[in-house]
Amino acid sequence: MAGQKIAVMGYGVVGSGVVEAFYNSLDSIKKKINPDVDIKYILDIVEHKGTGFDEKFISDFEIIVNDPEVTVVAEVIGGIKPAYDFTRRLLEAGKSVVTSNKELVATKGAELLQIAKENKVLYLFEASVGGGIPIIRPLRMCLIGNNIKQVAGIVNGTTNFILTKMFEDKMSFEDALSLAQKLGYAERNPSADIDGHDACRKICILASLVSGEHIYPESVYTEGITKITSDDVAAAAKIGYTIKLIAYCKCLENEKLQVLVAPMMVAPTSRLSNIKDVFNGVVVVGDAVGEVAFYGRGAGKLPTASAVVSDIIECIRFTPTDEPVFWQHGGKDKVIDRKDGEFSFCLRVKNTETAKANLTSLFGEGELTTEDSEQILFITKSLKEAEFENALNELKQRSEDVLSFFRVLK
Amino acid sequence: MAGQKIAVMGYGVVGSGVVEAFYNSLDSIKKKINPDVDIKYILDIVEHKGTGFDEKFISDFEIIVNDPEVTVVAEVIGGIKPAYDFTRRLLEAGKSVVTSNKELVATKGAELLQIAKENKVLYLFEASVGGGIPIIRPLRMCLIGNNIKQVAGIVNGTTNFILTKMFEDKMSFEDALSLAQKLGYAERNPSADIDGHDACRKICILASLVSGEHIYPESVYTEGITKITSDDVAAAAKIGYTIKLIAYCKCLENEKLQVLVAPMMVAPTSRLSNIKDVFNGVVVVGDAVGEVAFYGRGAGKLPTASAVVSDIIECIRFTPTDEPVFWQHGGKDKVIDRKDGEFSFCLRVKNTETAKANLTSLFGEGELTTEDSEQILFITKSLKEAEFENALNELKQRSEDVLSFFRVLK
Repeated sequence: MAGQKIAVMGYGVVGSGVVEAFYNSLDSIKKKINPDVDIKYILDIVEHKGTGFDEKFISDFEIIVNDPEVTVVAEVIGGIKPAYDFTRRLLEAGKSVVTSNKELVATKGAELLQIAKENKVLYLFEASVGGGIPIIRPLRMCLIGNNIKQVAGIVNGTTNFILTKMFEDKMSFEDALSLAQKLGYAERNPSADIDGHDACRKICILASLVSGEHIYPESVYTEGITKITSDDVAAAAKIGYTIKLIAYCKCLENEKLQVLVAPMMVAPTSRLSNIKDVFNGVVVVGDAVGEVAFYGRGAGKLPTASAVVSDIIECIRFTPTDEPVFWQHGGKDKVIDRKDGEFSFCLRVKNTETAKANLTSLFGEGELTTEDSEQILFITKSLKEAEFENALNELKQRSEDVLSFFRVLK
Repeated sequence: MAGQKIAVMGYGVVGSGVVEAFYNSLDSIKKKINPDVDIKYILDIVEHKGTGFDEKFISDFEIIVNDPEVTVVAEVIGGIKPAYDFTRRLLEAGKSVVTSNKELVATKGAELLQIAKENKVLYLFEASVGGGIPIIRPLRMCLIGNNIKQVAGIVNGTTNFILTKMFEDKMSFEDALSLAQKLGYAERNPSADIDGHDACRKICILASLVSGEHIYPESVYTEGITKITSDDVAAAAKIGYTIKLIAYCKCLENEKLQVLVAPMMVAPTSRLSNIKDVFNGVVVVGDAVGEVAFYGRGAGKLPTASAVVSDIIECIRFTPTDEPVFWQHGGKDKVIDRKDGEFSFCLRVKNTETAKANLTSLFGEGELTTEDSEQILFITKSLKEAEFENALNELKQRSEDVLSFFRVLK
């Protein structure tokens, strides 16, 4: 085992964090895993001078893939190109690859896992969901004595920061987004975060782990947070709820999955209601363990890097046995149509006598909050989305009382 | 890998849960780890008829230790005798052992881990802390890219249930204990829980994992919850705090540890303040990842069993490499004397002018809450325990104003 060398591909925020976290914890790594491990190469097209690692920088990928001393490679380039080709070639060359690249895992996971298996190496991605929070490994190892019933999480720190500012500082969506951009939490083009695509990739990874079949982003209904208004926030706050962007996966009895990403009204009893700012949280429900929750920093240089380092260590420690891959190619019919899924919905409507009467006649039993003189909140029983939409359309035809609605997470 | 057989030793609450959880998730286990695994033996001195597993029951340990087909054994007998001898003999016979037996791990962990290593098998104990909550594996695998700074947890469900009842239903300690006993959460002899011994064993296991040296229960200051009064509860609630039995381990800069178990006043900002009933939670602080938190059912048949099953699967999946053991025998001087440790303290004293003057003169700066006409809460700055005690003794000599005090967890 002596002499295992590591390469880090990409020296951006996460990559430089991986190098930093690795050397920060090298003493304890050496104490706990013994071998003479070290980072041999750092691949970047840009030259980085004065990092203290000048002699490790290379710009030619071929050096890494052809060096037999390199057994583990951290891919922290991100995106599909060239990360996908690099990863495939490395795995085929018998090198384990670890990554924080959720886009690649969510798009090509099944294929890369299969190539890893064929070459008796590992493809690990603890950092792809929840940053530094241990969630992938607990799901694939610790909770295997369970049939997982549900996974629901706040997995995007940027949107959670924006929503926290809207709730706590009464900021508008636009102002909160500007602040997030100013603080470096949101990109100049914030679409991947605020439109829910990032959260979608992450729930695809979790859903794939849970089901053993690859769940592709295309099959997951995804809604962002751009339509949430200050009025929605004020109304939710009044009944002790929050609004969070929830990545949701429910395992149904017919072995199918209900998977979606949408802003939801979160009840104060939920372990997700109190997760603020850029923090992430994931709640997993298993048939044996009940509810378990994981919480921490879902992004950021060193938190994410620490998860990458833990995967590097696992590659060094464990020889993969001939077990099946975490998940395989899956049919698209694994995920049910959104309209067949069930939820409780919270409707915000104008406070009129007609509205009240309509709500009960169209949606049946529900919880009605009428303390506000201008508006009513009505939480329906659990309904199929199709049923809800039919009733909602009817309500809209009868009056212009409907202001907004959200799915409810209890 | 085909034909690996498992034995379960002990068919009490956890043991029967292990068998149940194993067969409940066998489909997904087979899908995910392939081999023809099965439970071959269940060891119990009592005969259990009509369980559906009649042919698996045996009462002779020698059958297990001498059967080469058995590669993994779940020890869920509990206690030191005969579990210690059995475990040693099994490991020496080249069989991996997994357990929920925190007493044995906290007392003999270093020795058993060493024997396991010498025989190239595993000794795993995910279920020993936090029941079904993944915490051991995250600490030893996921967070290895960190230098761990602190671990603080609510790791005893019984005491957390009692304290929750005292806070939410204004029950006295005695009534809450009776209720816990009636509901089966507390033993008829509740000392191991209410005096903190159970929590002490668990923090010893976590502290050993973090430091790589065995931390023995004898070196850990342990205080239970028996002295907490309804007045303490009411005063804490008034300022938004709760009182929780906290198992605490702080890694100091001199590589020593501050480890203790005590009821603490927990600030509302702490991730531990909102953990109720029999639930457990552990907050880990790492230098890279920051704060991560784990939450779930810390006890109970199936939650605990699901953790045992996950360890069984790890034993089947992974061949141990020649890495060092999780921790080794440690010197007793690894843990600092309680009096050298630092904490903020919260003093509850009678609301008199003298008391106020004394508090400031003896403890220096602090937060003073005087809204109550009868009593004052004073939260000191961080003080060495020895310093605090000196000032406290002086205060007690000057007046009879002191009602109670607690360490503070922010």
